[in-house]
Amino acid sequence: MDHKMADLPTGPLDLYRKKASFNWKDMLIFIEGEELHSFKQHVFKTLENDALFARHPGEDIPLEKMRELTFLRVKQLLRYCFLTNEESISNPWKSVVLNACLGMYDWSVSAKYFLNKGMFGATVANTGSERHRKHVLNCEDMTTFGCFALTELSHGSNTRAMRTTATYDPTTQEFVIDSPDFEAAKFWVGNLGKTATHAVVFTQLYTPDQVCHGLHSFIVPVRDPKNLLALPGVLVGDMGKKLGQNGLDNGFALFHNVRIPRENLLNRTGDVTPDGCYVTPFKDPNKRFGVSLGALSGGRLSITRIAVVNLSLALTIAIRFSATRRQFGPKYMEEIPVLEYQLQQWRLIPYLAAAYALGNFSKSIFFNFIEFQMGLLMKDKSDRQAELGREIHAISCSSKALGSWTAQRGIQECREACGGHGYLAMNRLGELRNDNDPNCTYEGDNNVLLQQTSNYLVSWLHAKQQGAIRIQSPLHTVDFLNDFQNILESRFRATTMDECMDPAVPVAAYKWLVCFLLVECQKRLEQRKASGEDEFEARNNSQVYFCRSLAMAYIESNCLQRFQELVCDQDTPAGLRPVLSKLCTLYGMWSLSSHMASLYQGNYFSGAKPAELIQTTILTLCSQLKDDAVALVDVLAPPDFILNSPIGNADGQLYRNLWSVIMQGSQVLERPSWWKEFCSDKPVVGSLRPKL
Amino acid sequence: MDHKMADLPTGPLDLYRKKASFNWKDMLIFIEGEELHSFKQHVFKTLENDALFARHPGEDIPLEKMRELTFLRVKQLLRYCFLTNEESISNPWKSVVLNACLGMYDWSVSAKYFLNKGMFGATVANTGSERHRKHVLNCEDMTTFGCFALTELSHGSNTRAMRTTATYDPTTQEFVIDSPDFEAAKFWVGNLGKTATHAVVFTQLYTPDQVCHGLHSFIVPVRDPKNLLALPGVLVGDMGKKLGQNGLDNGFALFHNVRIPRENLLNRTGDVTPDGCYVTPFKDPNKRFGVSLGALSGGRLSITRIAVVNLSLALTIAIRFSATRRQFGPKYMEEIPVLEYQLQQWRLIPYLAAAYALGNFSKSIFFNFIEFQMGLLMKDKSDRQAELGREIHAISCSSKALGSWTAQRGIQECREACGGHGYLAMNRLGELRNDNDPNCTYEGDNNVLLQQTSNYLVSWLHAKQQGAIRIQSPLHTVDFLNDFQNILESRFRATTMDECMDPAVPVAAYKWLVCFLLVECQKRLEQRKASGEDEFEARNNSQVYFCRSLAMAYIESNCLQRFQELVCDQDTPAGLRPVLSKLCTLYGMWSLSSHMASLYQGNYFSGAKPAELIQTTILTLCSQLKDDAVALVDVLAPPDFILNSPIGNADGQLYRNLWSVIMQGSQVLERPSWWKEFCSDKPVVGSLRPKL
Repeated sequence: MDHKMADLPTGPLDLYRKKASFNWKDMLIFIEGEELHSFKQHVFKTLENDALFARHPGEDIPLEKMRELTFLRVKQLLRYCFLTNEESISNPWKSVVLNACLGMYDWSVSAKYFLNKGMFGATVANTGSERHRKHVLNCEDMTTFGCFALTELSHGSNTRAMRTTATYDPTTQEFVIDSPDFEAAKFWVGNLGKTATHAVVFTQLYTPDQVCHGLHSFIVPVRDPKNLLALPGVLVGDMGKKLGQNGLDNGFALFHNVRIPRENLLNRTGDVTPDGCYVTPFKDPNKRFGVSLGALSGGRLSITRIAVVNLSLALTIAIRFSATRRQFGPKYMEEIPVLEYQLQQWRLIPYLAAAYALGNFSKSIFFNFIEFQMGLLMKDKSDRQAELGREIHAISCSSKALGSWTAQRGIQECREACGGHGYLAMNRLGELRNDNDPNCTYEGDNNVLLQQTSNYLVSWLHAKQQGAIRIQSPLHTVDFLNDFQNILESRFRATTMDECMDPAVPVAAYKWLVCFLLVECQKRLEQRKASGEDEFEARNNSQVYFCRSLAMAYIESNCLQRFQELVCDQDTPAGLRPVLSKLCTLYGMWSLSSHMASLYQGNYFSGAKPAELIQTTILTLCSQLKDDAVALVDVLAPPDFILNSPIGNADGQLYRNLWSVIMQGSQVLERPSWWKEFCSDKPVVGSLRPKL
Repeated sequence: MDHKMADLPTGPLDLYRKKASFNWKDMLIFIEGEELHSFKQHVFKTLENDALFARHPGEDIPLEKMRELTFLRVKQLLRYCFLTNEESISNPWKSVVLNACLGMYDWSVSAKYFLNKGMFGATVANTGSERHRKHVLNCEDMTTFGCFALTELSHGSNTRAMRTTATYDPTTQEFVIDSPDFEAAKFWVGNLGKTATHAVVFTQLYTPDQVCHGLHSFIVPVRDPKNLLALPGVLVGDMGKKLGQNGLDNGFALFHNVRIPRENLLNRTGDVTPDGCYVTPFKDPNKRFGVSLGALSGGRLSITRIAVVNLSLALTIAIRFSATRRQFGPKYMEEIPVLEYQLQQWRLIPYLAAAYALGNFSKSIFFNFIEFQMGLLMKDKSDRQAELGREIHAISCSSKALGSWTAQRGIQECREACGGHGYLAMNRLGELRNDNDPNCTYEGDNNVLLQQTSNYLVSWLHAKQQGAIRIQSPLHTVDFLNDFQNILESRFRATTMDECMDPAVPVAAYKWLVCFLLVECQKRLEQRKASGEDEFEARNNSQVYFCRSLAMAYIESNCLQRFQELVCDQDTPAGLRPVLSKLCTLYGMWSLSSHMASLYQGNYFSGAKPAELIQTTILTLCSQLKDDAVALVDVLAPPDFILNSPIGNADGQLYRNLWSVIMQGSQVLERPSWWKEFCSDKPVVGSLRPKL
């Protein structure tokens, strides 16, 4: 066996590793596959062996330095070229894996790398034409550096309301880019703070006849690539410190009548002729708008994956800590690992189940997305392709919300579960929380995105009621709604915990829940309209407890179902099925328990028994899985160098590792440079107190 | 009217201020009182006018510099002496208010100030004797600087398991302080990282006969006050960066046979004679232990208050932002404030109700605590005093958990509710979250502390069942348990939303809930014991869904009840009652909604109606309170300089303020110092890629 499947170091964690019910290497290969596992290890080793990527856990680095380091590391990544463009195309999943590898090291590095090549480069390639090819090539070898500028200071979610303008001047055949005022400054643009030389800028396009043709994107040079100085007319700068991802330079830009050649319009969906006429293959401007923002929708699925990676890292740290940290015990001075406590199990193990469930989901949905992208590439105009687009949109919107929130809460739980040690920067839980945080709000605020999903579901029910059509979607996530009347009559039937151990129990409960919430949601919308509210008000006033819950239940249900399919799949090794089945049921029951009110409200549950059964099942599964927990995180964990958290090291020597990181720190034992401030100039107590 | 009640600036927030149903100044005076309001304004103005306290929102300051600045500010506070010792004693609440004022500015400053004087100084004063007086005086004027060293690297919650030893040597009449190994290093000690010269160190006390007398505390010099160099035998240093509160230098110390005079033992509860005999007024070592840790229990109530302050600051920022940020609207380009959306109201306004409920609770319980402390001071040996101690212990343990978690979740919601702008460091929501975070784990991990509360409640029920006693506690928080059988038979009776608007409805529901969970908890414990588990196992295996929920329900119920009493109090101005009553009901219903499963399980709720009524009541109250929300945060808000968040300024000019803070930042528009790294040394793509 080569180094890629190296054994884990022996140590205190063996207590649990020996008790695991499955072979962790089998699980690793089942989940990752041999090839991708080797690829990951190659990336990890490369970073570990390159001094440019060296770091000290919890070190205090000034903002300017963090941005420089991140830039240098991105430059180095180009030299390593872990994936050629051809390799990415032939195995798109490998790009996702690479992104995760870099992100496990530091999300700022992966974001900076991706925003230039993936976001700027791919947007130009996908929405421009042959005349923009040089821009794609230039950013690939850092001749230029790109960014993507959509959001403005006063507008984020409401993308249509952007106020930057591009007015065509036929006399010079140029567009004039202009920001009406600072509230229309492009804002939050990653890479724009310090390094971008070119931006894809979204503006309202005006032809000389003063007609506005809506949002279009342009390549706008912002800094001179020769010296990184701002170009005339462009006020461009750095937004300063963020809660996290501080290696990435987010920036703003104000344009004062900046002239760019007519050719800089990314013209896939609309163009302006040299004499100033607007031409587009789309008759419906809404449709054009949808396609021009299409570049964003894949991003939401990536974010789901990123969130799962963050959750997995935090769990690795917290579970290894819990398996080695001892506190209290049945007798004085005979302490037991905190993982032995029911409460600690209940705090962490359901999130571990969620990491497996969401990990499987984000991977499988990615392959559906690739299918959809192939369709786009092939210019597939079929109904199926259009339906697939709608369905993936509904899934990606809600999966970003589910993934980012689950990670947010899970990381916080991990941080608290590690007590004081979780509050030390060197143990990385703070960084993970801070770096994960924007996933909740960027590329669409979670709460706003969930409305897209509920709208999708409501529209299906509406269509069915109008035309008695058969509900059928390409990924079959809504097909069961055909049967909604029967499903609504179903009830929770399990009477023993043994029955509840079958993932089919929460799967069935979720089907009922989605149907129930969908019908309630529609009822609510109709009541609101009947009481005189317009569509806008009725929707807004039906979000809480209705549309929002519906969207969450739908995506949880999807995630659970795909996990159940994995458990039942013939190709799933028999030795792994028991533990996967437990994780699946635990995820389902635990998620379901947040919908208890609805389950009772709609009479799916009645009496004390169902809630009790769910609770007992959750606790029993946590207890059954606690001996597997360490092996389950071993599967998810990167090498120690990448994890970068002394309490989470694979050898489980938490105190030795923590202590040595502290001792290796800078000026740890030195008196402070300002020691004289203490020793001289002693304060006279009350000397500055106002005299009465 | 003087500056202390200055009017708020006019601006976009007037839209809401004009619609408020009450006068915010009346509320302010009702809540704070004239005198304390003036005091607060005096503190705030003093800081604002002192250049040493100047700062720039979101600035990036190196760790070493932050610690220096915090130290200098603490020194300056001694000069200002906002409260003399006499003033603190005559009005202890004023100390709490001062702590909050400093904390609103920066929690590191208030913590550093408090740990020296309040924690080191007060511990020495309260647990030492006349011979230790000089240490108290020395720390008051910074001749020395103190810290409190209990926690060790490998032990936190389990305080009895500390391993540092103090062995008495009668030949020199000294104690020898020793750390057996690095795992017993004192850890997490605030002020010890850079500045402390003296520490109160908790150790196992050994007399020459090798008998261990348990945990005792000693004054141990650690650094030379003349030069801040570590003393021989003391390995003392800085733990490095934390998630927050980085102005405070947390440190560690290892002792290698450090000799200190016999007199340095803090001897209130036990002493060693010159010839090495242990003497104590306590027969029961458990009782002695309890008293020696007594200094910690007041801390939990302070933390509750600190958490409420953090939540209030975050809400001020998020609600002012939501009232001025406009996004989408019924028509294109006619956008409405995001506070108008049901979803945004539901995300924020219940936390606003919680801030008022917990604000009232933490203040009123503080006065009970003062009564208890007076009893201690007067050496009150009555049963009532002992019972009051137990009751306050049960309350303080759970109130810390409720306060810190509510703040943690509330601040996170505020951060997300401000979208991307909430992710900018300059808007302070990250700092608030990071600074609040340790409240969840220090001075007892929340989950561990909750067990103290449930034990207290279970012991009452047990006593009643054993001896048919009447349950009665000094603060009457458990008196209703006498009636538990009747209460358990009660049911949710409200049938209309109007009825639900009465705070009495959630109050009654909570009484039922506490009784139900208590009985279930006891049942569970007995089942576990019957199945052969010992006390330790039975308790651990009854935490989730039982003991833990019981403790939370008890404290929420207490908090709600005291709020209801405030609403009904004759002295509460009539003009404020309607809004307070709404906040009270909202807090009750919203908290209750997290217990929906139990309410149905125990049959207090049945059918769809109760859950529906609670949901409708919550949404209706959110909508009724949205026009009051800005005025309600105006009451809680400190001046802009203290709040230090451009999107939360009182003038509501969020974009102007944000933009100007960005423009005032350092090197905002400059190219990066490392610009040549971009312009030269261009990477050759793939040059470092391994050749196959």
